[in-house]
Amino acid sequence: MTKHLKKLIAPMVSLIFLLNMTSVGYAETTVSAEVGFIFNTFLFLVCGFLVMFMAAGFAMLESGMVTSKSVSVICAKNIGLFSIAGIMFWLVGYNLAYGIPEGGFIGKFIPWADASAVDTGYADGSDWYFQMVFCATTVSIVSGTLAERIKLWPFFLFAAILTGFIYPIVMGWQWGGGWLAELGFSDFAGSTLVHSTGGAAALAGAILLGARTGRFTKSGAPAPIKPFAASSIPLVTVGVFILWLGWFGFNGGSQLAMGTFDDAVAISNIFINTNLAACGGVMAAAVVTRLMAGKTDVIQMLNGAIGGLVAITAEPLAPSPLAAILIGAVGGIIVVFGTKLLFSLKIDDVVGAIPAHLFAGIFGTLIVPATNSDATFSAQLIGVLSINIFVFVVAFIIWTIMKNTMGIRLSKEAETKGTDVSETGVIAYAIRD
Amino acid sequence: MTKHLKKLIAPMVSLIFLLNMTSVGYAETTVSAEVGFIFNTFLFLVCGFLVMFMAAGFAMLESGMVTSKSVSVICAKNIGLFSIAGIMFWLVGYNLAYGIPEGGFIGKFIPWADASAVDTGYADGSDWYFQMVFCATTVSIVSGTLAERIKLWPFFLFAAILTGFIYPIVMGWQWGGGWLAELGFSDFAGSTLVHSTGGAAALAGAILLGARTGRFTKSGAPAPIKPFAASSIPLVTVGVFILWLGWFGFNGGSQLAMGTFDDAVAISNIFINTNLAACGGVMAAAVVTRLMAGKTDVIQMLNGAIGGLVAITAEPLAPSPLAAILIGAVGGIIVVFGTKLLFSLKIDDVVGAIPAHLFAGIFGTLIVPATNSDATFSAQLIGVLSINIFVFVVAFIIWTIMKNTMGIRLSKEAETKGTDVSETGVIAYAIRD
Amino acid sequence: MTKHLKKLIAPMVSLIFLLNMTSVGYAETTVSAEVGFIFNTFLFLVCGFLVMFMAAGFAMLESGMVTSKSVSVICAKNIGLFSIAGIMFWLVGYNLAYGIPEGGFIGKFIPWADASAVDTGYADGSDWYFQMVFCATTVSIVSGTLAERIKLWPFFLFAAILTGFIYPIVMGWQWGGGWLAELGFSDFAGSTLVHSTGGAAALAGAILLGARTGRFTKSGAPAPIKPFAASSIPLVTVGVFILWLGWFGFNGGSQLAMGTFDDAVAISNIFINTNLAACGGVMAAAVVTRLMAGKTDVIQMLNGAIGGLVAITAEPLAPSPLAAILIGAVGGIIVVFGTKLLFSLKIDDVVGAIPAHLFAGIFGTLIVPATNSDATFSAQLIGVLSINIFVFVVAFIIWTIMKNTMGIRLSKEAETKGTDVSETGVIAYAIRD
Repeated sequence: MTKHLKKLIAPMVSLIFLLNMTSVGYAETTVSAEVGFIFNTFLFLVCGFLVMFMAAGFAMLESGMVTSKSVSVICAKNIGLFSIAGIMFWLVGYNLAYGIPEGGFIGKFIPWADASAVDTGYADGSDWYFQMVFCATTVSIVSGTLAERIKLWPFFLFAAILTGFIYPIVMGWQWGGGWLAELGFSDFAGSTLVHSTGGAAALAGAILLGARTGRFTKSGAPAPIKPFAASSIPLVTVGVFILWLGWFGFNGGSQLAMGTFDDAVAISNIFINTNLAACGGVMAAAVVTRLMAGKTDVIQMLNGAIGGLVAITAEPLAPSPLAAILIGAVGGIIVVFGTKLLFSLKIDDVVGAIPAHLFAGIFGTLIVPATNSDATFSAQLIGVLSINIFVFVVAFIIWTIMKNTMGIRLSKEAETKGTDVSETGVIAYAIRD
Repeated sequence: MTKHLKKLIAPMVSLIFLLNMTSVGYAETTVSAEVGFIFNTFLFLVCGFLVMFMAAGFAMLESGMVTSKSVSVICAKNIGLFSIAGIMFWLVGYNLAYGIPEGGFIGKFIPWADASAVDTGYADGSDWYFQMVFCATTVSIVSGTLAERIKLWPFFLFAAILTGFIYPIVMGWQWGGGWLAELGFSDFAGSTLVHSTGGAAALAGAILLGARTGRFTKSGAPAPIKPFAASSIPLVTVGVFILWLGWFGFNGGSQLAMGTFDDAVAISNIFINTNLAACGGVMAAAVVTRLMAGKTDVIQMLNGAIGGLVAITAEPLAPSPLAAILIGAVGGIIVVFGTKLLFSLKIDDVVGAIPAHLFAGIFGTLIVPATNSDATFSAQLIGVLSINIFVFVVAFIIWTIMKNTMGIRLSKEAETKGTDVSETGVIAYAIRD
Repeated sequence: MTKHLKKLIAPMVSLIFLLNMTSVGYAETTVSAEVGFIFNTFLFLVCGFLVMFMAAGFAMLESGMVTSKSVSVICAKNIGLFSIAGIMFWLVGYNLAYGIPEGGFIGKFIPWADASAVDTGYADGSDWYFQMVFCATTVSIVSGTLAERIKLWPFFLFAAILTGFIYPIVMGWQWGGGWLAELGFSDFAGSTLVHSTGGAAALAGAILLGARTGRFTKSGAPAPIKPFAASSIPLVTVGVFILWLGWFGFNGGSQLAMGTFDDAVAISNIFINTNLAACGGVMAAAVVTRLMAGKTDVIQMLNGAIGGLVAITAEPLAPSPLAAILIGAVGGIIVVFGTKLLFSLKIDDVVGAIPAHLFAGIFGTLIVPATNSDATFSAQLIGVLSINIFVFVVAFIIWTIMKNTMGIRLSKEAETKGTDVSETGVIAYAIRD
């Protein structure tokens, strides 16, 4: 349509509307409580299903990134972790997060039960759904880092603990109205609460689990890449596009309401900034790898998108478009150099989740005060430190206990055969002549 | 914002709203007919596109499950069947289902034509779209079971009959207000109407078509799995995640309205139960296969999700979260043992659609009275029997006629070469060195 | 229908509606300005994320269509071009299109800045998002045609020019209210503006770039297909299903409003026609290839869906369902014969984008007057010619300049090794034994 004409006609239409509205006495507000309730609920459901689909994105990203001997198990882990997250967040997580006393540290250990009332402004169930898929995201992040050498069921046990207890506790600190919220910490959609939480738990596991056999040479020289080559770049690519899509739900839904003019405008701007940050992350990684290595590393471009998205997640509303591009670009650069850092530390992060989620999450959270004047650097620093240290330490303790009881690492024989053979008995790719 | 604070403020805001609304004279209802109309229509469209995407989920699930010699044809079947379903549901199906007399058996054989009116509460076209994608689902279910040995065009002909006639007839019995609806049968989103219909038609075809050459040994000993290995587990996985995503539309949209507080709450709870049932199905299959075989069968976990989803589909609103998990878990277990049952009967269901859609659908429909006191076991039993027997018998007759006229099975030579070579001439995976 | 006229008719329809409603007793007007604003904004966001996801669809379609030596680079191109499009449309494109004087030729070279006001009827940001994903589509179309022999960074440079300048200029001619809109050109969702633009730019590039080495024999006999076999048919399939899904957003969102009864009905009918056109395209391609070659060409069925979708895009609202099927079927047939035409001209379009987007787009635009009496054949012809010639000539000049400066074609050695090795250094499929 010609936007032009519309712009001429629209004010007149609006004027008629406003006069009409004034005559019936509700000039200022024009959305009824019930209509607002439906809008808010629908926002949670639509954004929730987008975030739910991110589980497929992680599954594809990880399936493509691991070697072809470990793809079936990655699939089992991803479908399993999402199932475990759903059950645990119902059984413990929701009320552990939301049942927290104001300014407190921990909530209640009771299952969620529906208690929708009109006065909350949205269906409680829709919020449960939206928060549940966030919860699942944390453990999706862990899954890829530890691929190809972790036992399946110990991983599932850790997934239950992370989604039932660890994440809900830190979630309560902020989004449940706990002590971090009272302190003035600002993390719009969870750069730290969700992404760093997943990344810190993954880091603890990666340290305790050790690298894949033969991944790092003793001399410190770069290991030959070939035996660890990603099994399918197009699967990684579709995974990243699905995550990018899901992120509109992740950040957009975190506005938590759609029943007003202001909310609708805010969600639109969040979509724009989310997109531009991803764009910045991709292109920064492309340029940096091209300049450094002479070739444009497609894997870093793809992970650069994730880095950019994670970086903007702490504050996707306040930045200008230009600021969003820059924040995303820094996120992408962090991914490139964070990958090198882990490599030099001989920490084996199979899919690059730690740079993208932990490192870029820290940056994104600390940079919030640059665009949002309500945030303070000190509160951001306290939030980043407290959550990351808490999650890392608790995860480290749990991984250690598991390592010394049931064991978390596959036998060398199983690892050599490939996890697909040893753990699930199903070959991932059976391409016949 | 802290949810906590929001919970304190929201009631006050609502109170002001209500007082304000009362003063302008519309205390009771606060959603106008036009706003409700838009909400209802948009629900159909959003949920409809989610269900439409399930066609991609089936295509990927089936592509991954068949051997690499039959993947191109599976793709051709899936894009073709969805196209046929769309055309047939317009040409015959819609009015065959909805043109049924009250309490009757069959509708009218005329094409759908738009007739939207404000008094239906939603755009007729949006309902057409939503019902069309349901119709397509029935034949998606059939596609995989019969893979690797059926001729392409006879399959397309059956797809046209199923989506144009068989499904619309049973759809009319219940959702068109026919005799089953009058009887008090309860099938919220189609455990029986959609999923068992597809499964029963697939079963009839599988019996008449026979197993793939060499699939079962004469001695009854388990056949070697390797020549029938699934071509790509990650494609199965993304297929299942897409189906899981689509199911929120499938069940959520079956609330059929979003224009009230109650509808919004109901849809939210449907989302939760749908998700938890899938979770239950996955984990039940994981545990059962791990205990029985020593390895965690990723394929059964993935099909377990489908079994759980099908089982909850007959009644995704009434169950508590715990009940939903249990219903889904039984669905997942049915998939595992149903697969074994078919194997022992030497019925070759390439993708496991019969256990997941037919068996779990029967269970899900029969269990409805356990959580929904408006349903009776006798009505459920009549519905399950009448629909499954009708569909099976009619499908069996049609497959038999086709078998004895045009033939439905590929030559042994074509089967050995692979359907991709014989039917479409396009190799599915051309991986060059 | 021309959005122009629509604006004139809509108030009258609304008035009739209001009178009608008053007679049944629910008086005033029933959608407040704020509720309408939220509906319109949400339509843009939901349809926008569907169109955004089309980027993943193109990435998969192209990954599957190229040979396995060029898949990683196709992934890099697709994630890169979407990023470049986002940045360029913000930096230049938006105001180049929308800042155009009424009836004019070109807009303003300034970045987009948020300026949402209630009187536009929707959040400006949501429209930015929706238009940005359209812009990205144009260059997605180019990407596949030129695969396997183009240099990565020159392609990125062209992507920046196309999304920052070429597309926004033609977009402004029509949707910005420029000279084509004033002339009465009718292109509802962009058969010409988006799809032909992409196709014409791709054609210019394909001519200048030349075919892949060995693609065409000198004698004119058909070249052996095997060395150029598509790497993965299921990836093509999921790509097409994603595109089909996204098209509901593409065409549905182009209604540009959802805040009235009429809009909701219109969007529903657009969904139906969009779907039926794709169905027609698939089945027409299936029948034609089966009759002509004896085998049912799955690739042509998949591209037939795209041809059908492109053909209906110029007018997805006015046609009857039957007309939509026929328009789509012609689109599908155009794809089949267009592919043969390019082959006979020795133009190497790796994924078949030129027949599907350029040829079917021309047909779809020219056929509009057959179903929409507001459109005239002469205006359609002027629109088709002016846009296609403008885009082709400008693109040809730019490709020529680039060819003679930085070079656009890879060395023969790089092409033989495969673009994955030479450009990104990442093997796409590393399937280990």
